[in-house]
Amino acid sequence: MTVTVEQTRTRFSDGRRIVLAENERLLNSVAAEQWDRAGSLITSARAVFVIGNGRSGLAVQMAAMRLMHLGLRVHVAGEVTAPAIGTGDVLIAVSGSGTTASVVGAADTAKKVGASLLAVTTASDSPLARRADEVLVLPAADKQDHSATITRQYAGSLFEQSVLLAFDALFQALWDNEDQTAERLWERHANIG
Amino acid sequence: MTVTVEQTRTRFSDGRRIVLAENERLLNSVAAEQWDRAGSLITSARAVFVIGNGRSGLAVQMAAMRLMHLGLRVHVAGEVTAPAIGTGDVLIAVSGSGTTASVVGAADTAKKVGASLLAVTTASDSPLARRADEVLVLPAADKQDHSATITRQYAGSLFEQSVLLAFDALFQALWDNEDQTAERLWERHANIG
Amino acid sequence: MTVTVEQTRTRFSDGRRIVLAENERLLNSVAAEQWDRAGSLITSARAVFVIGNGRSGLAVQMAAMRLMHLGLRVHVAGEVTAPAIGTGDVLIAVSGSGTTASVVGAADTAKKVGASLLAVTTASDSPLARRADEVLVLPAADKQDHSATITRQYAGSLFEQSVLLAFDALFQALWDNEDQTAERLWERHANIG
Amino acid sequence: MTVTVEQTRTRFSDGRRIVLAENERLLNSVAAEQWDRAGSLITSARAVFVIGNGRSGLAVQMAAMRLMHLGLRVHVAGEVTAPAIGTGDVLIAVSGSGTTASVVGAADTAKKVGASLLAVTTASDSPLARRADEVLVLPAADKQDHSATITRQYAGSLFEQSVLLAFDALFQALWDNEDQTAERLWERHANIG
Repeated sequence: MTVTVEQTRTRFSDGRRIVLAENERLLNSVAAEQWDRAGSLITSARAVFVIGNGRSGLAVQMAAMRLMHLGLRVHVAGEVTAPAIGTGDVLIAVSGSGTTASVVGAADTAKKVGASLLAVTTASDSPLARRADEVLVLPAADKQDHSATITRQYAGSLFEQSVLLAFDALFQALWDNEDQTAERLWERHANIG
Repeated sequence: MTVTVEQTRTRFSDGRRIVLAENERLLNSVAAEQWDRAGSLITSARAVFVIGNGRSGLAVQMAAMRLMHLGLRVHVAGEVTAPAIGTGDVLIAVSGSGTTASVVGAADTAKKVGASLLAVTTASDSPLARRADEVLVLPAADKQDHSATITRQYAGSLFEQSVLLAFDALFQALWDNEDQTAERLWERHANIG
Repeated sequence: MTVTVEQTRTRFSDGRRIVLAENERLLNSVAAEQWDRAGSLITSARAVFVIGNGRSGLAVQMAAMRLMHLGLRVHVAGEVTAPAIGTGDVLIAVSGSGTTASVVGAADTAKKVGASLLAVTTASDSPLARRADEVLVLPAADKQDHSATITRQYAGSLFEQSVLLAFDALFQALWDNEDQTAERLWERHANIG
Repeated sequence: MTVTVEQTRTRFSDGRRIVLAENERLLNSVAAEQWDRAGSLITSARAVFVIGNGRSGLAVQMAAMRLMHLGLRVHVAGEVTAPAIGTGDVLIAVSGSGTTASVVGAADTAKKVGASLLAVTTASDSPLARRADEVLVLPAADKQDHSATITRQYAGSLFEQSVLLAFDALFQALWDNEDQTAERLWERHANIG
């Protein structure tokens, strides 16, 4: 019967409970001091570059926009107006597995030209992490772990969510420390386009 | 002294606590049945269009990518390859205030050509909400409320976070209902670019 | 017979002849002095913003990339990292008809905040042109002219082509005047992403 | 004296003459029959994918938009909504040198999954060209030629311009052959975003 079938189906409420619980456990297990140190690296850079593929890339673009609002010079890799990265810049490189070829390649270039590298990944011993000045581990899932003990969500969803939430938590800290009013930040929001 | 000063500064841990608590309270207060109904509208549409400005736009693009993985035909408004929206399509329109001109204008066009409209907003009586077939309220902040009782985060951050988390919760429900394996979805992930 | 039919069909060679002839006639009829003056406005601005819809937008993004290579600070309206436009900036606003709502709206904002406005359009008496400090007319088509005397191409194709060619001609002039080597420009090309 | 100085500087008129002359010579030397064959491959594909870096990428996105207007299913590699390329699809891969790593990598993937490959390049014996079902040579510049006999423009400008002009010439041919009215195409233009 239809009613019975519907009652056994997964509903939004179930999804919500999973998403909230997984993010709470994950974010609370993060090494907060690393994120504080990363904040210092970011705000003292000449310019901030971000790179990431797919949904990871969209999440770190959300972070990039907030850093721009903070008054920093920010570029998204691949964006039309992005120039070359160079000495004194910082690259925020996001890859759940830490093995995404384009991201690891960008990390190599960043180090070669004298930029700092912040790796955001689930894997502390990945190729990306090994190149980094600071490794921001978001323990969202282990590639060898198919037991669904870390996440019941599809693919990298938990990682991508935590990228947004962690960078917004970092922004909250940077914002208060800079002692800039909301009005001052608001003036930097895009007014055309 | 440095130590004292640092102890008074806002740290990542403080930001993390705020982000987690606000999202938990917000998502738990959402009308889950509306999201379940929205899921039916989305999966039965000819094509799904999404629109949103700034960080709201990036969050709903993350949702759009997952809907594409589910096998739906999806377009982001403003994307090079997006055709005209028409009869039988659904528009997911995201605006915290429900007043963003470009989003409300797109909503008008969608209704005029016979598409369905899902409004995602904080304001149930906004211009956007009034045009919608289904209003998905994310009570992230009230424009008249400057008391920081709903959110201590900057600008629309809480709203934007909840857009991502709510759509990922909805995806989790849709995915299970469709009974598609993770492998089947994975085959749809972009393999070039 | 198939052969006969094929011989009567339009071929690439026909399209090529149309495209070349139309662009030659159009570009040669442009007021070159206006483009030289526009070049001075662009290179003396604090930052350069560009806006345009659809293919016009892509063409002016190609121009924006070259201006960045020249060492200018450049933003594309709607790009993730684009901040607010302000005093001392210049907006290059592209609209064939000179009536595109989002472009005219951006032009209004630019003038209000004290930025210069370069209008690129086919219509010298359009709403966009009337707001501009300098009007760059590309006489690609007249909206009232359906006689195909100006262009036999589809829609705004000739206008969009001429936007690219005219800006690349302007870049060629700016580049020589600045006396920068190709090697110096090349160093600014994106090295990641 | 100012007048003298100005007379020795490169002006827009000089740039215009160079741009027009170079494009005319280049396009007239193209093998038109190859472009006609490419047109057949494109219009008979299940879906069309395009890829290119930087300004080449923007030029082929302008082509992609017109193919969408023609009623084809089109995806830009890297776009949020682009799914996996597969059997029966066609990839239009653009690289002046024919060696761009990300483009050649995408070409490999396309061939592996059973898609057709159209290479658009200056180099008929490049890695990209060697993988292709059809090679569309735009003889814009030779990497070994620094004598400026082919182009006096900066970097790949001539190539990028010719990508746009050649695809628009091809579109003109496809459009007439399909016998679709301008009104029918216009209905497909994006009406939101």
